[in-house]
Amino acid sequence: MSTAYAIIAGVGPGTGASLARKFALTYPVALLARNPDNYTSLVEEINKSGGKAIGISTDVSSSSSIDSAIAEIKSQYGDKCAAAVFNASGPFARKSILELTEKEFTGGYEVSWAKYPGTLIFTGATASVKSNALMSAFSTGKYAMRALSQSIAREFAPKGVHVAHAIIDGVIDIPRTKEWLKDMPPEAKIEADAIAEAYWNLHTQSKRAFTNEIDIRPMLEKW
Amino acid sequence: MSTAYAIIAGVGPGTGASLARKFALTYPVALLARNPDNYTSLVEEINKSGGKAIGISTDVSSSSSIDSAIAEIKSQYGDKCAAAVFNASGPFARKSILELTEKEFTGGYEVSWAKYPGTLIFTGATASVKSNALMSAFSTGKYAMRALSQSIAREFAPKGVHVAHAIIDGVIDIPRTKEWLKDMPPEAKIEADAIAEAYWNLHTQSKRAFTNEIDIRPMLEKW
Amino acid sequence: MSTAYAIIAGVGPGTGASLARKFALTYPVALLARNPDNYTSLVEEINKSGGKAIGISTDVSSSSSIDSAIAEIKSQYGDKCAAAVFNASGPFARKSILELTEKEFTGGYEVSWAKYPGTLIFTGATASVKSNALMSAFSTGKYAMRALSQSIAREFAPKGVHVAHAIIDGVIDIPRTKEWLKDMPPEAKIEADAIAEAYWNLHTQSKRAFTNEIDIRPMLEKW
Amino acid sequence: MSTAYAIIAGVGPGTGASLARKFALTYPVALLARNPDNYTSLVEEINKSGGKAIGISTDVSSSSSIDSAIAEIKSQYGDKCAAAVFNASGPFARKSILELTEKEFTGGYEVSWAKYPGTLIFTGATASVKSNALMSAFSTGKYAMRALSQSIAREFAPKGVHVAHAIIDGVIDIPRTKEWLKDMPPEAKIEADAIAEAYWNLHTQSKRAFTNEIDIRPMLEKW
Repeated sequence: MSTAYAIIAGVGPGTGASLARKFALTYPVALLARNPDNYTSLVEEINKSGGKAIGISTDVSSSSSIDSAIAEIKSQYGDKCAAAVFNASGPFARKSILELTEKEFTGGYEVSWAKYPGTLIFTGATASVKSNALMSAFSTGKYAMRALSQSIAREFAPKGVHVAHAIIDGVIDIPRTKEWLKDMPPEAKIEADAIAEAYWNLHTQSKRAFTNEIDIRPMLEKW
Repeated sequence: MSTAYAIIAGVGPGTGASLARKFALTYPVALLARNPDNYTSLVEEINKSGGKAIGISTDVSSSSSIDSAIAEIKSQYGDKCAAAVFNASGPFARKSILELTEKEFTGGYEVSWAKYPGTLIFTGATASVKSNALMSAFSTGKYAMRALSQSIAREFAPKGVHVAHAIIDGVIDIPRTKEWLKDMPPEAKIEADAIAEAYWNLHTQSKRAFTNEIDIRPMLEKW
Repeated sequence: MSTAYAIIAGVGPGTGASLARKFALTYPVALLARNPDNYTSLVEEINKSGGKAIGISTDVSSSSSIDSAIAEIKSQYGDKCAAAVFNASGPFARKSILELTEKEFTGGYEVSWAKYPGTLIFTGATASVKSNALMSAFSTGKYAMRALSQSIAREFAPKGVHVAHAIIDGVIDIPRTKEWLKDMPPEAKIEADAIAEAYWNLHTQSKRAFTNEIDIRPMLEKW
Repeated sequence: MSTAYAIIAGVGPGTGASLARKFALTYPVALLARNPDNYTSLVEEINKSGGKAIGISTDVSSSSSIDSAIAEIKSQYGDKCAAAVFNASGPFARKSILELTEKEFTGGYEVSWAKYPGTLIFTGATASVKSNALMSAFSTGKYAMRALSQSIAREFAPKGVHVAHAIIDGVIDIPRTKEWLKDMPPEAKIEADAIAEAYWNLHTQSKRAFTNEIDIRPMLEKW
């Protein structure tokens, strides 16, 4: 017996954790991060609070590492992937994402277990659409990820798979950014839980109204 | 005594009606259309089903007509506007929108009655970002509306007002388009209720995570 | 007997004058501005230096005024319009531009008098692609002009007419801006002659390599 | 004694050859391609017709290969690089481009030998701004190259270096595409010489009027 589950790839103390908690309200979740410190306590927290979570140490820039993670997820949860969120700051292995989409999501929306269309969401940044001086190492990866998400979106939408790209335009309020913008009111930073809310809303969209790109910024952000 | 209300400007048998029903679940609504035929039965339906609605014949391309409508709304509902959706296919009077934003929304999010940040949503189209041959009469208006929404968004966001622009990319499934794409499955057209759902999700976003632009298309749309 | 000519609509002491001088090296030019002060001395200068120029007082936002100007140009120069540059800061009458394109340019590239494809160039600005706070009166017009240029470009390109839109991103170095950025080196402002050079290069492009949009900014511009 | 030279990276029988011939009218040129077959006869042609050319077998996706090529160029031509065009279809080594820009171009515009600002031009494609289904391997690279060009443009413009990105939107008329669109008139394909002309015009732009992005398409292209 298996049940639909969600993958959060790129889990840390900020957005990834918010996403994990949000999707865990509905699905068992598989949390991927290179360093187990990034998911261990979160897995425990979710399992204790009535949800279900597993953590898998994964290098998301490596096809073989993602492939191993997928195999592990299937052995535990089966093959009904309802949603996958790609949330790491570094590059993802393009090939594995394509394979994941091909194998796991195609046609999923037709079958009875799927309440919502299978969903892939990519976390982009300001640098996904603007490439500033001295930022090329970051922005080339982000532009490329946006290209990947658009190509997959066009390929898989007719099969009922929903692919979306989020341009996160601003500083996310997480432990690491605690000292940033500290003289500004809270509305200068993005709340990680609000990103999770937006992603959940994307996941629950009808196949007759897919959003393929959104931007998200705090009210005090200049743009 | 007054209560927060919502304005739907540009009500017809499709998206406008869906928006009216959706926002009427939470707010009294004021429905604007030039032709009363476009709102009369809808107003009745909402009032009968436990909501509250008024309809006002308005030419949204005329500043004085919008000003009269706003005055009428205030006399009936007061001055706590929670959300306004600009959904007409033709041009809106820029000046009135600016005045509406200035007077009605500014600072609203700080006061106790406002559960969500005051929200203005503009309905755009494919032609808001692509201007095809022979389409300049339509696309010049849509490009201009997008410019307006972006300018207002930047001006009023720091005051807590949420302005968003939706690129509706596809045929909406309404009575007028019944014969369009009739050999295609339902997933070739956008469901009006799903647009209303997306707009509601925009309205309820935290001021720490405003989305200023989304696209919406059915899964079978080419883009 | 008639010869191919060029129209510069929106002539003043800056870019328009540079454009007039540049195109006058090859074509008789018709210079349009509302106020004759903006073209009188320039017309004299061009005629004295071996070129040919006429000036016509025109309100480019009025269809009838543009129509009168076109009639006047035809009576003096005939009907072989080689290039038209729309360079005014305010809005142009859309209808007249469409008619001008339809009547004057269509098929022109096929006939013997035309050395280069008939060319329409629109002068845009930063505000053509970014709509800042409090700038909506300007940016809505600029977004709309960009939409117009793109629509015409797609309609008339197959007929051999070249339509281009230039995003002028920065302060142009003209008498009116003399005091702006005065503590910066000259490379902080755009040289009007260099814009004219770029437009001429657009005009001389092969019909097998049309550029439909360029940006132009000085080396010290932030973008 | 040394003289200013140009580098064409990615030379083949089409655009690269046109670029080489165009820039060889003014500069000694260094032609880079992995396979010497792609430059041998062209080098001979240019040298026989009064120009000066060398060819260097280079893998432009490899930093060390580019570094070797640069060393070879310097030993033959010196260190006055006037222009570099990145024209290969595959990915370029980002690090080497950054180093080339840092070392060769910075400040060049101030010195007496430089008639025009030092120029880097990147050849993009439709896939630089639109990522179609099944095209992600190509488009991710093209999006990334555009990000790189924009970042370098912003970094080096204040130092007088001109970086531009060209969106080549259409089929280039080269031997390899001879059978494509064969039922269409010649205006359905881009003429390689016309691309070279456009790039030369970019190179000769004033530092007070840099174009950072152009699109180029044949008059019969749908877009």
